[in-house]
Amino acid sequence: MKVAILMGSKNDYSVVARAETILDAFKVEYTTRIMSAHRTPSVAEKFSKTAEEEGIEVIIAAAGKAAHLAGVIAANTPLPIIGLPIKSSTLDGLDSLLSIVQMPKGIPVATVAIDGAENAALLAVQILSVKYRELRDAMRAYKVSMEQEIIKADLDFQNEK
Amino acid sequence: MKVAILMGSKNDYSVVARAETILDAFKVEYTTRIMSAHRTPSVAEKFSKTAEEEGIEVIIAAAGKAAHLAGVIAANTPLPIIGLPIKSSTLDGLDSLLSIVQMPKGIPVATVAIDGAENAALLAVQILSVKYRELRDAMRAYKVSMEQEIIKADLDFQNEK
Amino acid sequence: MKVAILMGSKNDYSVVARAETILDAFKVEYTTRIMSAHRTPSVAEKFSKTAEEEGIEVIIAAAGKAAHLAGVIAANTPLPIIGLPIKSSTLDGLDSLLSIVQMPKGIPVATVAIDGAENAALLAVQILSVKYRELRDAMRAYKVSMEQEIIKADLDFQNEK
Amino acid sequence: MKVAILMGSKNDYSVVARAETILDAFKVEYTTRIMSAHRTPSVAEKFSKTAEEEGIEVIIAAAGKAAHLAGVIAANTPLPIIGLPIKSSTLDGLDSLLSIVQMPKGIPVATVAIDGAENAALLAVQILSVKYRELRDAMRAYKVSMEQEIIKADLDFQNEK
Amino acid sequence: MKVAILMGSKNDYSVVARAETILDAFKVEYTTRIMSAHRTPSVAEKFSKTAEEEGIEVIIAAAGKAAHLAGVIAANTPLPIIGLPIKSSTLDGLDSLLSIVQMPKGIPVATVAIDGAENAALLAVQILSVKYRELRDAMRAYKVSMEQEIIKADLDFQNEK
Amino acid sequence: MKVAILMGSKNDYSVVARAETILDAFKVEYTTRIMSAHRTPSVAEKFSKTAEEEGIEVIIAAAGKAAHLAGVIAANTPLPIIGLPIKSSTLDGLDSLLSIVQMPKGIPVATVAIDGAENAALLAVQILSVKYRELRDAMRAYKVSMEQEIIKADLDFQNEK
Amino acid sequence: MKVAILMGSKNDYSVVARAETILDAFKVEYTTRIMSAHRTPSVAEKFSKTAEEEGIEVIIAAAGKAAHLAGVIAANTPLPIIGLPIKSSTLDGLDSLLSIVQMPKGIPVATVAIDGAENAALLAVQILSVKYRELRDAMRAYKVSMEQEIIKADLDFQNEK
Amino acid sequence: MKVAILMGSKNDYSVVARAETILDAFKVEYTTRIMSAHRTPSVAEKFSKTAEEEGIEVIIAAAGKAAHLAGVIAANTPLPIIGLPIKSSTLDGLDSLLSIVQMPKGIPVATVAIDGAENAALLAVQILSVKYRELRDAMRAYKVSMEQEIIKADLDFQNEK
Repeated sequence: MKVAILMGSKNDYSVVARAETILDAFKVEYTTRIMSAHRTPSVAEKFSKTAEEEGIEVIIAAAGKAAHLAGVIAANTPLPIIGLPIKSSTLDGLDSLLSIVQMPKGIPVATVAIDGAENAALLAVQILSVKYRELRDAMRAYKVSMEQEIIKADLDFQNEK
Repeated sequence: MKVAILMGSKNDYSVVARAETILDAFKVEYTTRIMSAHRTPSVAEKFSKTAEEEGIEVIIAAAGKAAHLAGVIAANTPLPIIGLPIKSSTLDGLDSLLSIVQMPKGIPVATVAIDGAENAALLAVQILSVKYRELRDAMRAYKVSMEQEIIKADLDFQNEK
Repeated sequence: MKVAILMGSKNDYSVVARAETILDAFKVEYTTRIMSAHRTPSVAEKFSKTAEEEGIEVIIAAAGKAAHLAGVIAANTPLPIIGLPIKSSTLDGLDSLLSIVQMPKGIPVATVAIDGAENAALLAVQILSVKYRELRDAMRAYKVSMEQEIIKADLDFQNEK
Repeated sequence: MKVAILMGSKNDYSVVARAETILDAFKVEYTTRIMSAHRTPSVAEKFSKTAEEEGIEVIIAAAGKAAHLAGVIAANTPLPIIGLPIKSSTLDGLDSLLSIVQMPKGIPVATVAIDGAENAALLAVQILSVKYRELRDAMRAYKVSMEQEIIKADLDFQNEK
Repeated sequence: MKVAILMGSKNDYSVVARAETILDAFKVEYTTRIMSAHRTPSVAEKFSKTAEEEGIEVIIAAAGKAAHLAGVIAANTPLPIIGLPIKSSTLDGLDSLLSIVQMPKGIPVATVAIDGAENAALLAVQILSVKYRELRDAMRAYKVSMEQEIIKADLDFQNEK
Repeated sequence: MKVAILMGSKNDYSVVARAETILDAFKVEYTTRIMSAHRTPSVAEKFSKTAEEEGIEVIIAAAGKAAHLAGVIAANTPLPIIGLPIKSSTLDGLDSLLSIVQMPKGIPVATVAIDGAENAALLAVQILSVKYRELRDAMRAYKVSMEQEIIKADLDFQNEK
Repeated sequence: MKVAILMGSKNDYSVVARAETILDAFKVEYTTRIMSAHRTPSVAEKFSKTAEEEGIEVIIAAAGKAAHLAGVIAANTPLPIIGLPIKSSTLDGLDSLLSIVQMPKGIPVATVAIDGAENAALLAVQILSVKYRELRDAMRAYKVSMEQEIIKADLDFQNEK
Repeated sequence: MKVAILMGSKNDYSVVARAETILDAFKVEYTTRIMSAHRTPSVAEKFSKTAEEEGIEVIIAAAGKAAHLAGVIAANTPLPIIGLPIKSSTLDGLDSLLSIVQMPKGIPVATVAIDGAENAALLAVQILSVKYRELRDAMRAYKVSMEQEIIKADLDFQNEK
């Protein structure tokens, strides 16, 4: 069981690291790679063509601006691809979001919120949990713990006032 | 193996039917339901809480405007949820897209393009293919057939000119 | 007479507190709760189903990003719901605004400006004033005091120059 | 018990009529008026200053483009004002929405979806139901009937297939 | 010869002051007032109805968010009105711009760029120059001085390199 | 007394003709010209440099897409320039609006609503009325007639129901 | 001397054909191909890697939605790439435009207006004219003929009135 | 062989300097000028009319807000023009982008990303490389070095973890 996290640039790691933290918490093995649809097309192509046989089962691709990485990877593999739009210095991430989510018919990319690295990882876990039932249980537990956290925050908030 | 397709209104079916066509082509069993996060909250809640035990493995939720259906279903189940934003009469689908994709930390929705019903279904197949290897093979074949189709269209286009 | 203020996260309190200040000024009783449409769906459901019998007469729901809280509460109660869109780290609050205001036919949410916490509270007071005439008088007085404040600011400004 | 529906132009009536249908269904008395913040400022001012004493309890103001009607009415009355943004020939209603919802601190307008005339009326009913309990019961019944309608649509859809 | 500069709030003065600087440079008399379409509707109405007889010939109205001030003033006077959209804390001034520029048929507002206070003042001077020929000459000189300034900046830039 | 109406293309005339109708009603002389900032730069330059001496007192420049015509004319004349953004086949006129209204410091363009040809003409009349008092009177009468028209529409509407 | 025009789908040809008409007029040889960054990645890769040696000197890539074709071609060739955003059924071409123009540092795409096929071709001619002086002369003549066309349209318009 | 870089204001130099760095690296001669379509129209006109005979082969025009510089230069020269939209204090560069890229039929501007100065320079090099083969080789080498840089960043990232 393995997830690949790809990012278009080292700069994206401050966001992407939050996806790693989630995957660590779920004990999901992953590899994080820097590669670019535009600057390292051969690396991206080779990666996407061999990912399946390397045992990768879900790929998270994070990129900003005209974010083509997720789509380019999706072109070359039947694996499910999660697109993580990164907010860059202009347009507040709208360019990244539209470049990732508006994929043409035939090649879907499962897109999450702008800078939504935790959700990209949680979606990867949910996808893997179709096969790996222990992840389904872990996801159920995660949802309960989120719920408890909010309930506790609410109680603390009532008490503080 | 089973997909549930949910739509917020019967009107969405003209788009949603294209997802059914894809699932039929992949011989993936599915059920299509009309339910609303806002008008039938109890139905949506009951559905989302029992979907897993009913054997549903992936859910596609299609909705327009302030499209809460995918998020509300995601709140109550650990299954992967695919959000399909439907273009409505104003704002060209941007409201639907943002209401679905910008989910807060903890509850992801795998969002596809506005009115991208085929891609919602293809993503469901890709997710199921993590477990069901025959779907992986079918997806690989689908990609080859798309490729052939474009290559043929290109050849025909050259010849026509 | 009672208002409930709901917020999707403790982080929203820096904005929401300004609504409390207004309600305090109008001597309107309120309770402020942290609950999430996505992370505590059962809490939100139970709250919305019992709010009316608990004596709540208006509900303010504040949330950011794909802000479903107001809509989800509105689904389960006939009470008037005020939606307060919170600006988050991307898209400048446009996602929150559209997710709250573009509600489909049948389930309205009375939406105020992005981060417009004072106005959410003032709208709650106006709604309550349909029944409680002392609030109508207080609102009339409030409008007069706002007017005086601007008139004084204008005079001071003329004098300073 | 009385609602006033204001529209900036006769052209808005094709949308606004749907609000009347809802109010008729709830047996809420209303008056529908054509007036403009810009072309009939005196009419609008007089209306807003006397609405309360005329027995109006909630006002719905529909307008398009730089839609100032709701705000201008709100300036002169302590009554709750519902803003209904009308989509016009450019910008898909975004201009109307922002002109109505982004009201500055002190003067709220309860905004509903672009062209959301039914919801404007339903919100008026919800606001009135704070005082008139028979409307609360009617709203509860309305929500049940909407629910039944969707459930029936779902059943019919299952049977048709 | 007289310009009135109106601003919806004291906070807008940091931008508006730049308009005053331009008017000072052109030796155009002006008065700067704080008034609000929503919080001081009577002041705004009285001002707009008497501006012409007070000798005001052009009005600049600066406001943010749902910026109704320019439109409301324009409703009550035949004078030319210049709208100056102020950027506020959300939506980057787009709400102010659309609320001012998208005026319905019959009541124009001469809109300048978001936070474009200098241009609001220069436009006032250009409008006045239709009548006052010395302002036409001053405007011609101003354009020459701007041109010289840029030409000098270019030369300095060449020399610095 | 003379207005020049410029349009970037013959296609814009279906909108621009409505400005002519207004100017005819006010008995303001005008000339309508087709010229382009990009395709006939010499014509535009010559026109803008000689407009003042030709007796032109206000210029209306209508253009779509990257609408540079108003700005380019404004660069070469001290006359007040009114920009009329034309909606073209994509982006719903937002490109035209921003290209016209967001002028940099020093060169204002008085911008009206997208496709707001009547308002462009009315603004021209208001500007001319600073000098020509009969136009001020005519504008006052125009406002009264608009008011009467709406009041009559309201009465007719009440009677029809 | 040779231009390649690539389009992501046969459907784009109704727009793209206008680029061919321009290239025909300039007697620039071209080839038009259908290929997709996502559906025929190998074709696109092979094309982009061999374009230079095949004698292609400029490439026009037309695509809609998440339009990755131009960027993907640019990744594999040092040739100048012109991106032509195609308006599709949602978002009015904004998604195509941002996906093409917002290219990250290192891999430029020369982007023209949404559906601006003529300009894509004219830009190709301008680029080629850096080398081929007869195209420079032809471009100069083209600009003159455009100018004459507008001047004639203006004259005809004056005469018709 | 020569590139001209034009910027509308000295303030744009912090962005534009990055284009110079690229051109220096490619040993492409360039001149950088400050000129404005609006404030120095004669300078811009003269420059654009003589650029070709001065030996300029490609022009980069950087401007913000209603960015007309690129279009105005393009009107007067058959040379290829690269438009570089500069982000200014409002609207996040969207106004600059649309004002530059949405050029009407006949006058293309090769637009790059908002603040994408490096890409403007790289595009200039690619255009020149149609004629100057040593630049083609340099561009090929540049692409290889970018690729190596990313590959090294990826390796370093793997080793650091």
